[in-house]
Amino acid sequence: MADIEKIVLSDKFAAFDTYWDPKVAGELNGQQVRLAKLKGDFVWHSHEHEDELFLVVQGLLRIELRDSQVELGPGEMVIIPRGVEHRPVADEEVHVMLFEPAATRNTGQHTNERTVSTLERI
Amino acid sequence: MADIEKIVLSDKFAAFDTYWDPKVAGELNGQQVRLAKLKGDFVWHSHEHEDELFLVVQGLLRIELRDSQVELGPGEMVIIPRGVEHRPVADEEVHVMLFEPAATRNTGQHTNERTVSTLERI
Repeated sequence: MADIEKIVLSDKFAAFDTYWDPKVAGELNGQQVRLAKLKGDFVWHSHEHEDELFLVVQGLLRIELRDSQVELGPGEMVIIPRGVEHRPVADEEVHVMLFEPAATRNTGQHTNERTVSTLERI
Repeated sequence: MADIEKIVLSDKFAAFDTYWDPKVAGELNGQQVRLAKLKGDFVWHSHEHEDELFLVVQGLLRIELRDSQVELGPGEMVIIPRGVEHRPVADEEVHVMLFEPAATRNTGQHTNERTVSTLERI
């Protein structure tokens, strides 16, 4: 039988302290559960082929869209459809769970200093 | 632009009170975010082609496996790989978020009185 591991989110978040550096907490059906700590503002980007789910675990996350914005607290989530430009902004530290295809690059169509090419598993 | 809706988990859970009757709270990349209230014990089943994620939002969920079990509290999750027989058991009411392919049937390979064929969107 495959190894079945209980994943405790608080333990996983305690295991790293970098910002904008998603870690892979699990994988299923070609999708990854990623955990990230966010602080400050990210770059505007979109994902051409992938929808992206943000579920806030701790803190307050604002996701800016070109013509509106969404504010998310703990237990709140949003799905950003593919192709939609967005910019996550965290005035204070935010812990977020992301759900997206394993192939999704954090900066979407852009490659820049915020791009994380190989995600660490935790 | 596609409609971008903030999803408040507590509001969604407040919108239904049936057990073992998953509701679709969101869809992305051919996967669904499902919310369910569980109480009592479910049937033993497996999913031939789909891995399944259980994230507990409220309560204590025990997932029995044929040779072990996993107990999950709020903020804890597990991924049950395809093909692995499992049985969720909730001694008291549990609120759980499921993440699985849109095609996944709740009772896996079985059809019985617990099977929910068409999931409602909330």
